[in-house]
Amino acid sequence: MEHLDAQEREQQWKKIQEALFNKQIGEFRAEFLELHPYDQAKIFEEQSEDVRMLIYSYLSPEEMADVMENIDYEDVEEFFTEMDPRYASNVLAEMSTDDSVDILNELDKDKVASFLTIMDKEAAQEIKELLHYEEKTAGSLMTNEYVVIHAGQTVKEAMRHLRQEAPEAETIYYTYVVDDQKRLVGVISLRDLIIAEGDWLVSDVMSDRVVSVSVGQDQEEVAHMMRDYDFLALPVVDFQNHLLGIITVDDVMDVMEEEANDDYSKLAGVSETERSDQSALAAASKRLPWLIILLFLGMFTASLIGRFEKALDVVPILAIFIPLIAGMAGNTGTQSLAVAVRGIATGEIEKLGKTKIIIREGLTGLITGLSCGIVVTGVVYVWQGNLFLGMLVGLSIMMTLIIATIAGSMIPLVMHRFKIDPAVASGPFITTINDIISILVYFGLATMFMDLLLKQ
Amino acid sequence: MEHLDAQEREQQWKKIQEALFNKQIGEFRAEFLELHPYDQAKIFEEQSEDVRMLIYSYLSPEEMADVMENIDYEDVEEFFTEMDPRYASNVLAEMSTDDSVDILNELDKDKVASFLTIMDKEAAQEIKELLHYEEKTAGSLMTNEYVVIHAGQTVKEAMRHLRQEAPEAETIYYTYVVDDQKRLVGVISLRDLIIAEGDWLVSDVMSDRVVSVSVGQDQEEVAHMMRDYDFLALPVVDFQNHLLGIITVDDVMDVMEEEANDDYSKLAGVSETERSDQSALAAASKRLPWLIILLFLGMFTASLIGRFEKALDVVPILAIFIPLIAGMAGNTGTQSLAVAVRGIATGEIEKLGKTKIIIREGLTGLITGLSCGIVVTGVVYVWQGNLFLGMLVGLSIMMTLIIATIAGSMIPLVMHRFKIDPAVASGPFITTINDIISILVYFGLATMFMDLLLKQ
Repeated sequence: MEHLDAQEREQQWKKIQEALFNKQIGEFRAEFLELHPYDQAKIFEEQSEDVRMLIYSYLSPEEMADVMENIDYEDVEEFFTEMDPRYASNVLAEMSTDDSVDILNELDKDKVASFLTIMDKEAAQEIKELLHYEEKTAGSLMTNEYVVIHAGQTVKEAMRHLRQEAPEAETIYYTYVVDDQKRLVGVISLRDLIIAEGDWLVSDVMSDRVVSVSVGQDQEEVAHMMRDYDFLALPVVDFQNHLLGIITVDDVMDVMEEEANDDYSKLAGVSETERSDQSALAAASKRLPWLIILLFLGMFTASLIGRFEKALDVVPILAIFIPLIAGMAGNTGTQSLAVAVRGIATGEIEKLGKTKIIIREGLTGLITGLSCGIVVTGVVYVWQGNLFLGMLVGLSIMMTLIIATIAGSMIPLVMHRFKIDPAVASGPFITTINDIISILVYFGLATMFMDLLLKQ
Repeated sequence: MEHLDAQEREQQWKKIQEALFNKQIGEFRAEFLELHPYDQAKIFEEQSEDVRMLIYSYLSPEEMADVMENIDYEDVEEFFTEMDPRYASNVLAEMSTDDSVDILNELDKDKVASFLTIMDKEAAQEIKELLHYEEKTAGSLMTNEYVVIHAGQTVKEAMRHLRQEAPEAETIYYTYVVDDQKRLVGVISLRDLIIAEGDWLVSDVMSDRVVSVSVGQDQEEVAHMMRDYDFLALPVVDFQNHLLGIITVDDVMDVMEEEANDDYSKLAGVSETERSDQSALAAASKRLPWLIILLFLGMFTASLIGRFEKALDVVPILAIFIPLIAGMAGNTGTQSLAVAVRGIATGEIEKLGKTKIIIREGLTGLITGLSCGIVVTGVVYVWQGNLFLGMLVGLSIMMTLIIATIAGSMIPLVMHRFKIDPAVASGPFITTINDIISILVYFGLATMFMDLLLKQ
């Protein structure tokens, strides 16, 4: 189990490729199985279908299960379609239940049903238990391969039980204690267990204040709990406190990455997380819907300016400040949007209260607006020699910044209130809204003070 | 150790507050110490200085150490300044070494020196070992409180040693095996250790292909390794493979959150990660530098348009499409920027090669540009009844989208090449550059085809 950098992987990969080319099953197995499953998966993914078929015949379902636990979910459908169905269902049975469920969720229903029919009954039962939980909830993250002990057992009995179950269990570093109704009553870490004397009772060593999550809880909340409390595993219970499964820290790390990527992509207006290795056509088809929507919003902005054509005819110089004002509105809006979205995601805003945040953003907008407004007034006055023009642009920037800053934080807060993911109010969306606001402010003021502008 | 939601915390908090108000030390300790240290820290942070002084006198340095391990680093300076220096240095000595080092890095040098002088010698030595590692490297994340065993020991001896060290060690779930020169030669999980027979040798049970990170490695790479390989701990070595420390998964989760927040904030042009609970003045002072830079870039854009004043005088309608074209350029640029920055962060781009990515982005720009260009030409023609104007706007959008998409991915790639954090090429920055490009394209084309525009 060695971590390989790109060069080492290339060398190891050459050896493995040679073995595959010469159909030397022994060589291949010796080299391939020495790698960490993550690297096995990376090498497997690079192969053509012919070579993959060869690999299926060289590896047992159990060995293939390790590979498949580390594969990108985007590709699994292809692999599980080309495998012999019996082999495929054996691979699924050998995988960690939570991982095979994730894979089955990517396949179409007919295939899932046929795999589960061929599969070993016990494994199929375990998978079915997890299959119906909603995506992005605690239930969809948990596994049902965990060890439970009873409060009345001695430490020695518990350790014996743990040793037996260790090969199958997802983790043995936390063991959960249940009563006769399978209700969660305690937790004990392996650390405490190995320090304890063998004849002590589990009930004397365990902690009876167990932190648990309920099965429908959002996966982001689960991730935050694990990060804050530094747990390696969390038990999942139903509303009557029956133990249903456990979530381990490795799954939570994937969730954290996924959620962060999600927020990031939405801020940039890439609706689904794009991967760098996909084709231009795939990338374009993901970005185009957003761009087309923004295009029409932009047309609306253009038609707004069209309504002020008269002002533009009379004072054409007004046009040159449009991108400046619209751009500043977009920039501040995105800033306060980002702070609000992260604040909601980390739970900070919940604690502080929304009104406080909006007042805070309003004040921030006032300070930044005043500062930028004064700078702009000065620069435009010096540059164009027209004080009223300078004041018009400066005042527009100031008002725009205040409104844009408040809008940037208020829109995600309102969306959160109505249980819409606030990250959807992405950067480009806020930017376009703020474009519209800024145009209205700028030309509204220009029309009001037209006489003053023309005097100079 | 119970997770508390806002309401439960309020109740518990009232009891604790009452106990503090009535100076009932027994009551306070009973309620407070029952909480998870994370919740203790949250409650502690909400207190006034007077109450905090009271809490210091009620808790032992060891108990206070648990609280301080869970505190926001932004606030620690205040706390460690108001504490009695001897108490403070005892708290630091009792904390996990990696956490006390993180705190000492927030304090000024004089204070650090005086704390280390008062402190218990052994603890001071451990802290000094870690204090000089550079921020954001593996060295700065690691702790030196870990258990090592020797290859020649029996499993039984190793277990005995582990039991002794368990209370002090950061984790006992992975134990690292070293030779006489303290060089890392193997790793064994507690899981494997408890399954093994007592009289077996460690060398027979351990894995001798240990994944390790070198002490200067970037923390983001460490986080990715831990996520990919599903480790709970990683050993840190120098270039001669001497074991220096270990990094545990809980520290890596904090890094992942920190890096994700960092990238997100930069995309939005908030240079430092802002917290929702800071004052408007603090928020404004963090955002203003960015806004002022962008303001001057925006002025430059305005002066560019000023150069085309003639075209605007002749065809004032040109002005109304400025925000549309500039906006679309900004949007596509941010999209391809986000994909490139994430691709660099996850290492995907390294694997694929930069030329491939840029060609891919060029093609993507061509597809999105063509699509949007055709739509715009049609809409403008129908709306304004001027085919050449429609074609001018459409062609501008097409060219702008192609250039902006390429720029959005090329700029972060070039920055990465020169070892500058590509996330610094934030959204607003790319947007403003693309504003400038789009203005040049639009008015450049308009000037070239002025005759055609006027014909209709």
